[in-house]
Amino acid sequence: MSLVAFPRPVSITALALVAGPATLASANAAAQASAAPKNRVVMQVSDADPGKWNLALNNARNLQADLGAANVAIEIVAYGPGIGMLKADSVVANRIGEALGRGVKVDACENTMRGQKLTKADMLDGIDYVPAGVVEIMQKQQQGWAYLRP
Amino acid sequence: MSLVAFPRPVSITALALVAGPATLASANAAAQASAAPKNRVVMQVSDADPGKWNLALNNARNLQADLGAANVAIEIVAYGPGIGMLKADSVVANRIGEALGRGVKVDACENTMRGQKLTKADMLDGIDYVPAGVVEIMQKQQQGWAYLRP
Amino acid sequence: MSLVAFPRPVSITALALVAGPATLASANAAAQASAAPKNRVVMQVSDADPGKWNLALNNARNLQADLGAANVAIEIVAYGPGIGMLKADSVVANRIGEALGRGVKVDACENTMRGQKLTKADMLDGIDYVPAGVVEIMQKQQQGWAYLRP
Repeated sequence: MSLVAFPRPVSITALALVAGPATLASANAAAQASAAPKNRVVMQVSDADPGKWNLALNNARNLQADLGAANVAIEIVAYGPGIGMLKADSVVANRIGEALGRGVKVDACENTMRGQKLTKADMLDGIDYVPAGVVEIMQKQQQGWAYLRP
Repeated sequence: MSLVAFPRPVSITALALVAGPATLASANAAAQASAAPKNRVVMQVSDADPGKWNLALNNARNLQADLGAANVAIEIVAYGPGIGMLKADSVVANRIGEALGRGVKVDACENTMRGQKLTKADMLDGIDYVPAGVVEIMQKQQQGWAYLRP
Repeated sequence: MSLVAFPRPVSITALALVAGPATLASANAAAQASAAPKNRVVMQVSDADPGKWNLALNNARNLQADLGAANVAIEIVAYGPGIGMLKADSVVANRIGEALGRGVKVDACENTMRGQKLTKADMLDGIDYVPAGVVEIMQKQQQGWAYLRP
């Protein structure tokens, strides 16, 4: 499977370097506007319900279909009772592979894995890991990502 | 049924026009504060569960009761398994009519409608349509709207 | 039970007072950055499901464990069908007490209480009250808090 690069915000450092003090404030304002969160969404999967897992994957697919995969950053975070979505025997394993192939980031919560005695060997290939799903979801929102709970 | 006008943010253009360059930065700062997102909430309805539909409508009613209908913008977006809330035979049809009459915006997802072979003739009168419910919910948040999933 | 002080954002008034007009814009920008919402999350509990109540409490505990209790503000808002979480006979009464003891703010919705003919005498000790849970959740988001629906 080939992975599409995950879109990231453009750096604004160069813009600030060429601006003198007098124009820095307006440059910053413009940069804040242009670098403002756009088309970034973090999805929470915390139910042990394959119906919800499919909904999350449908939502990701529709976001990419409507906006173009290059124009939207999507991160799915599975934790708590939702961790089963990302186990090697997941009923949505194929769809996870497809989502990864389209550049969707998919995270398993290591806190949850420890609690359920799961190791990376028990999980699907190609996914990412975060120390705590709930912290990841909070931080992404505070960085300007939209939140979606399918 | 007479529709109440949907509240929109006040324009700040006039403020900027009378401000010279020296005061523009602070005028902008003040304007950002005063025009900052206030009392705007987008609600997600994606469950095929009339109990959730009623909760969403209760939440909308309580927001308007507490803040005044003119002081809060509310948009309910139904998509996926939640689309039944907005079909002509919906069990909450009367309540949707009342919410529309109080200025609540109610959107059906056209992606979902296509998937379920629904046309506008199958849906309740007075509602709005969005190309993709999930995109609408993401974009509203990125424009500063709060998110609520009843 | 001794209550830990609830963390609040640092005041930036002193910073502004010593800054002349020329530096005020950048001081404001810096202040906005440093006072920007960080590690603040409002959790919605609106299901009559003790499983969800325990998930909310797990999430709060994990946020504090990962970030340090002093470094994250957590507010749990129970309303609608979720109000049972905060009744005196709640099955999670002990865990609510522990969360309060670790500085988590826990709010009951007075709108819901009126609807269910509940008074403060029917509720757990140490909790707070908000006029309308849904308004509280909206306002916290618009003040920069992240949203979580366990």
